[in-house]
Amino acid sequence: MVRVGIIGASGYAGGELIRLLLRHPEVKLTHLVSDTYAGQPLSKAFPGTAGTLAGGLICEKRDGIRAAQTSDVLFLAGESGSAMQIAGELLNLGKRVIDLSADFRLRNIDLYEKTYKIEHVGARLLDEGIAVYGQPELNRDNVKSAWLVANPGCYPTATILALAPLLQRKLIETRGIVVDAKSGVSGAGRAKSDPAYRYSEANESVRPYAVGGVHRHVPEIEQELSVQAAPENVSVTFTPHLVPMTRGLLATCYAPLAHTATTASEVLAAFHDIYAEAPFIVIRDGNDYPATKDVAGSNFCHIAATVDPRTRTVIVTSVIDNLVKGAAGQAIQNMNLMLSLPETMGLEGTGLWP
Amino acid sequence: MVRVGIIGASGYAGGELIRLLLRHPEVKLTHLVSDTYAGQPLSKAFPGTAGTLAGGLICEKRDGIRAAQTSDVLFLAGESGSAMQIAGELLNLGKRVIDLSADFRLRNIDLYEKTYKIEHVGARLLDEGIAVYGQPELNRDNVKSAWLVANPGCYPTATILALAPLLQRKLIETRGIVVDAKSGVSGAGRAKSDPAYRYSEANESVRPYAVGGVHRHVPEIEQELSVQAAPENVSVTFTPHLVPMTRGLLATCYAPLAHTATTASEVLAAFHDIYAEAPFIVIRDGNDYPATKDVAGSNFCHIAATVDPRTRTVIVTSVIDNLVKGAAGQAIQNMNLMLSLPETMGLEGTGLWP
Amino acid sequence: MVRVGIIGASGYAGGELIRLLLRHPEVKLTHLVSDTYAGQPLSKAFPGTAGTLAGGLICEKRDGIRAAQTSDVLFLAGESGSAMQIAGELLNLGKRVIDLSADFRLRNIDLYEKTYKIEHVGARLLDEGIAVYGQPELNRDNVKSAWLVANPGCYPTATILALAPLLQRKLIETRGIVVDAKSGVSGAGRAKSDPAYRYSEANESVRPYAVGGVHRHVPEIEQELSVQAAPENVSVTFTPHLVPMTRGLLATCYAPLAHTATTASEVLAAFHDIYAEAPFIVIRDGNDYPATKDVAGSNFCHIAATVDPRTRTVIVTSVIDNLVKGAAGQAIQNMNLMLSLPETMGLEGTGLWP
Amino acid sequence: MVRVGIIGASGYAGGELIRLLLRHPEVKLTHLVSDTYAGQPLSKAFPGTAGTLAGGLICEKRDGIRAAQTSDVLFLAGESGSAMQIAGELLNLGKRVIDLSADFRLRNIDLYEKTYKIEHVGARLLDEGIAVYGQPELNRDNVKSAWLVANPGCYPTATILALAPLLQRKLIETRGIVVDAKSGVSGAGRAKSDPAYRYSEANESVRPYAVGGVHRHVPEIEQELSVQAAPENVSVTFTPHLVPMTRGLLATCYAPLAHTATTASEVLAAFHDIYAEAPFIVIRDGNDYPATKDVAGSNFCHIAATVDPRTRTVIVTSVIDNLVKGAAGQAIQNMNLMLSLPETMGLEGTGLWP
Repeated sequence: MVRVGIIGASGYAGGELIRLLLRHPEVKLTHLVSDTYAGQPLSKAFPGTAGTLAGGLICEKRDGIRAAQTSDVLFLAGESGSAMQIAGELLNLGKRVIDLSADFRLRNIDLYEKTYKIEHVGARLLDEGIAVYGQPELNRDNVKSAWLVANPGCYPTATILALAPLLQRKLIETRGIVVDAKSGVSGAGRAKSDPAYRYSEANESVRPYAVGGVHRHVPEIEQELSVQAAPENVSVTFTPHLVPMTRGLLATCYAPLAHTATTASEVLAAFHDIYAEAPFIVIRDGNDYPATKDVAGSNFCHIAATVDPRTRTVIVTSVIDNLVKGAAGQAIQNMNLMLSLPETMGLEGTGLWP
Repeated sequence: MVRVGIIGASGYAGGELIRLLLRHPEVKLTHLVSDTYAGQPLSKAFPGTAGTLAGGLICEKRDGIRAAQTSDVLFLAGESGSAMQIAGELLNLGKRVIDLSADFRLRNIDLYEKTYKIEHVGARLLDEGIAVYGQPELNRDNVKSAWLVANPGCYPTATILALAPLLQRKLIETRGIVVDAKSGVSGAGRAKSDPAYRYSEANESVRPYAVGGVHRHVPEIEQELSVQAAPENVSVTFTPHLVPMTRGLLATCYAPLAHTATTASEVLAAFHDIYAEAPFIVIRDGNDYPATKDVAGSNFCHIAATVDPRTRTVIVTSVIDNLVKGAAGQAIQNMNLMLSLPETMGLEGTGLWP
Repeated sequence: MVRVGIIGASGYAGGELIRLLLRHPEVKLTHLVSDTYAGQPLSKAFPGTAGTLAGGLICEKRDGIRAAQTSDVLFLAGESGSAMQIAGELLNLGKRVIDLSADFRLRNIDLYEKTYKIEHVGARLLDEGIAVYGQPELNRDNVKSAWLVANPGCYPTATILALAPLLQRKLIETRGIVVDAKSGVSGAGRAKSDPAYRYSEANESVRPYAVGGVHRHVPEIEQELSVQAAPENVSVTFTPHLVPMTRGLLATCYAPLAHTATTASEVLAAFHDIYAEAPFIVIRDGNDYPATKDVAGSNFCHIAATVDPRTRTVIVTSVIDNLVKGAAGQAIQNMNLMLSLPETMGLEGTGLWP
Repeated sequence: MVRVGIIGASGYAGGELIRLLLRHPEVKLTHLVSDTYAGQPLSKAFPGTAGTLAGGLICEKRDGIRAAQTSDVLFLAGESGSAMQIAGELLNLGKRVIDLSADFRLRNIDLYEKTYKIEHVGARLLDEGIAVYGQPELNRDNVKSAWLVANPGCYPTATILALAPLLQRKLIETRGIVVDAKSGVSGAGRAKSDPAYRYSEANESVRPYAVGGVHRHVPEIEQELSVQAAPENVSVTFTPHLVPMTRGLLATCYAPLAHTATTASEVLAAFHDIYAEAPFIVIRDGNDYPATKDVAGSNFCHIAATVDPRTRTVIVTSVIDNLVKGAAGQAIQNMNLMLSLPETMGLEGTGLWP
């Protein structure tokens, strides 16, 4: 059994890690860190864990030595800026680390500091290529040998999975790409007390935010799409929206066709081909567009693609559960790869529908 | 007092007309037609009208003569295909007609028949220019003298209001425009029994539909945007989405800048200028993006616009209540203009928040 | 025109007062007080007021003299404990006051202080009978001559309207009454930052709170029901529940029949009789039970009643919009009575449906 | 491995059985019956099953012989009235049957026929005591030896679990009990096309239905509570409500104390005692009342209880997921017992939160 610790256990991503790891046949939860609930049983943070194996676990304070003593793998599920403080120490103690924050996603440290307004104290791990970007479908081999994985953001996951095959196959232009993304409110995390996330104000309303390319995930999206399109660089116009639902994320991606004669079938064939070995990608056919509800609670990403022949534009729609494939589920998928376990272990099956 | 009749009174648009007209100081509701509730009081169709002036009105069967005898103005709020059956007769009887269906929106009858799969039996009213497209902000003078107004669709209203100033001022290209629209479920109407509109399946889910330029509103959007951009023709890549809320519609519009040096300020200035006299348009400033909840229940359209300097793309977001500015409210605004009443009469004030 | 000021204008009840008063033909909004938005236009607090007559009004700081100079009637829409600080001064300056907080609802000051954990500094206004409990349907004559009205709470309004006729007519026992109430989240107000009101945690969940007779509204409910049942005292078992919706309040009331032979018809007759002159009460017939949506945005209270013949229990269900009939609408209804205006002025018509 | 078939696989309960059985280590899904989707892969009925082991299974027509050939255990998840047609045949063929409909819940056949308006063609199975009422917490031993289990209804499950300990210990009266229940919309099933379940009409609304003891679950509740209170008979005043959420069921139960001196601690002790061995019951302490979200997607039932000392009333609140503990999860719990598997197998862990 793999002994697993979670630092930042009482947030939404932490709770989702716990939910999923409870089902993982090779994992034993041994160490839960929560500043808010230190000294209290996990069921105080998540009443739904009462009666399960996890409910009685006692949350602890942040302590790298203790984390290393109790755990073989550590998930870092705190705010950006906190992972860089502890990741190096854990690696030095011989532990595998999967970071769900943004701290190790951007290879350009200046860009990180400008984007997150945080001085980066773990630059060495980035400079020396120790941190690996953990999009398993596109970077599986590197993840397998990694000791530090930067788990992708929710918007980047849906966007990159939707556009990578088209860029790899040069089916679309690298300029003029528009990504219009819609997320449930849980994407804001548990700690946010912004009035916009109050029930009465978020309910029955959809709204854009961070319009004009200023969302923190834009550099991450462009970095990874550029990897797919290499040697070309990709820029995108990205607009996130807040949708009145708890979970779920839909990216609707628009891109100009590189060759005007490309058909929807050719586009779909690229997806089928590139994701042939990806166990969590489902390509939807024809006019059967995915809904976020189809993947609520599961680690799947459903993708549909078509061509608007009038405007020579490819439209790709991809849906994920922002807390699963967009966070905790993908993190466990990365752990499985790092530990040479079956990629789908503990993540099989459907989500919750309806 | 203007005597008003509603044909198709028991649907969502009909109910909204009733709600708004009850507040209109110059209107008396005299004639309500509902196939489903004929012979029954309106409160059977809408329990919330019990106790109001309208609740005791008895719904009637469809009858053009009776409509003309009782009413000065008729709102046609039935399905597309039904308005063309009766509009000519009502006009011949000297009545003003405001049609909320699509029957008189498209000037190209072949395109109508192809789009709606209905043979058009009222072509004369289109060919002779009798039907006027009722987007008051852009076509006010024609509406004032019209006897037959084609009330715009909900998606076209939000889209056209968002893009018209940019096209008029030649600030954007007429190719490469993307419109990503999000609508509440009431947009599907009361009659639809599609499982997708069941509570348990629509709730907690966002999904695209009619992807690839096949939505019925695309020809209407392109027709009217081309009027604004004349003599150029405009084509758009349009994707509608179903969002888990009852009311509200957001159009997020993306367009390539015509001149790369155009600033967000210049874009906003165009909006302020062109809508200076439009009482229901609010231009939101800076980073204050509109939410659909801001206009729920009101006839306002809030618009924000910015420029992504990295991609030279204008992003315009516009919100309306699909049943008010996107249907019944705009229809009453048109009626006010047709009758030389103040444009805002009966439509003043805010919606319902939170 | 009546000049109206609102102290506590930027909360949910304040916003609802503004929405409704904008439609009132005899009212001019002259004075808006908000600690949070002092010096800023109202549209900062409520973006949906942009473009309306109210949007440009500037919020001010709390100032009794200024309030009296600008206004004939003052609505106090702040937290409990704040109204008692200013009501006396406003009355002394010859102003009419309608208090939406709990400060003047309980005639027993000890009970107030115990319930609200606040020392009462305005006891004189209660002791001398100056404050009048403003349930217009049951206390209309006293309201008409009042200068200080204590506007009822939301739960008390729905409960008292549901049970008063049965108590007046001695149709039910005064012991063994159960009130199971369900409220939308806006009932918690705009200022509350309790995690339970976060979208992601309130959504898709129903839960009880303040179980066992400890909710603050219990003394108010029992006080007013005892007035109806005089000389008997009434006690109730009251349980409030939080329901995942923004607005709406349903009280499901259970009471043992006083005489086992009483029929549902006799029960309904009492309601029709006692509310014959009440313009905002709708008695639903037979098996047509009301939904909160039927009254969303309106000042109506819909009531249905039946008898379970097996258990000799009356079940009365009543629905209101907690922000309208449960707060701002009822306050305006009281204002109309105080000023000898028609009781329904500015409150006519239906709410928003669907 | 146990070979399992589901008759009625494409409804909400059927889908939930599939979701849960996919996780069950001793089960292999071998036979799925759906009239609507016969001949098509399961992923047509449930897009979220695409990519899982179940997604490619082909739905079949109803055929008892085929069911028996392929399966060791059959779950009947169709409408009431359909199980009685096939249960006898399956038992004769040596199969275990778990019926999620109401067909075998009521021991009084006249009462069944009066309640469900269906002639009962399987009376022998009831008369001879073959059918066992499958509330595992209260009837575990009988379930263990059963070949035909009548799986309880959702409302009865929450109600019976809430009240049984109090009745067994004679802590409450058997008259004067009120059960006020609130259910999410999925309780209505997938086949219902009632307009009340349309998104736009169910959303933002709570409403009672079947008021006055006329809901179909009342006889079932009273039958089973009377078993607990034997030799006394229990009657309840039961009111169900529709709440705007997909899943979740809360029963708020009120009962007069049998002895006025009973304390909340004594009440809680009875719950802890009687459910000491029940792995899916969580007793919440003190003022920590359960929310339906705490059990969404899980097989747990959380219960809290307190005493209103002013009215000498016990208030018990219990929450379940209506599709899990109220249907599919409890059915699998029963299967585990019937097959001498661990009671919790395949049902461990938490649900989905938030």
